Amino acid sequence: MENRELIQFGLHLKKLRMERGLSQEQLGLIAELDRTYISGIERGIRNVGLINIFRIARALNILPAQLFSIEEK
Amino acid sequence: MENRELIQFGLHLKKLRMERGLSQEQLGLIAELDRTYISGIERGIRNVGLINIFRIARALNILPAQLFSIEEK
Repeated sequence: MENRELIQFGLHLKKLRMERGLSQEQLGLIAELDRTYISGIERGIRNVGLINIFRIARALNILPAQLFSIEEK
Repeated sequence: MENRELIQFGLHLKKLRMERGLSQEQLGLIAELDRTYISGIERGIRNVGLINIFRIARALNILPAQLFSIEEK
């Protein structure tokens, strides 16, 4: 159940990244995170913490809330 | 700088919790997290991971994005 949420989060991040024409490596460089870490997030296997959530949002030039604007409940 | 973001996040969580009339202990019980962990988040000293972010949002009956609807840039 929680895995599903990580996977959804990862797919959403991937979509946001690709919409900006960035590779995982490029996003990693901007966010100062390793490419393999970005890859892990997108595959839903990383339990990303707040500090990196804020860092990724800044790198994508979006608000942190937009990283979570996934579910239409 | 990132500390400031954790502190903002914590203050926002505290506001959301208190608006619902919940103590830290009550929120902890609902979210299945320790009261001291909730306290640490609210003081901006915990780098909360996605799994617990989703858990806290569920406990407050809000969308995860609402935990981040802080900054009016």
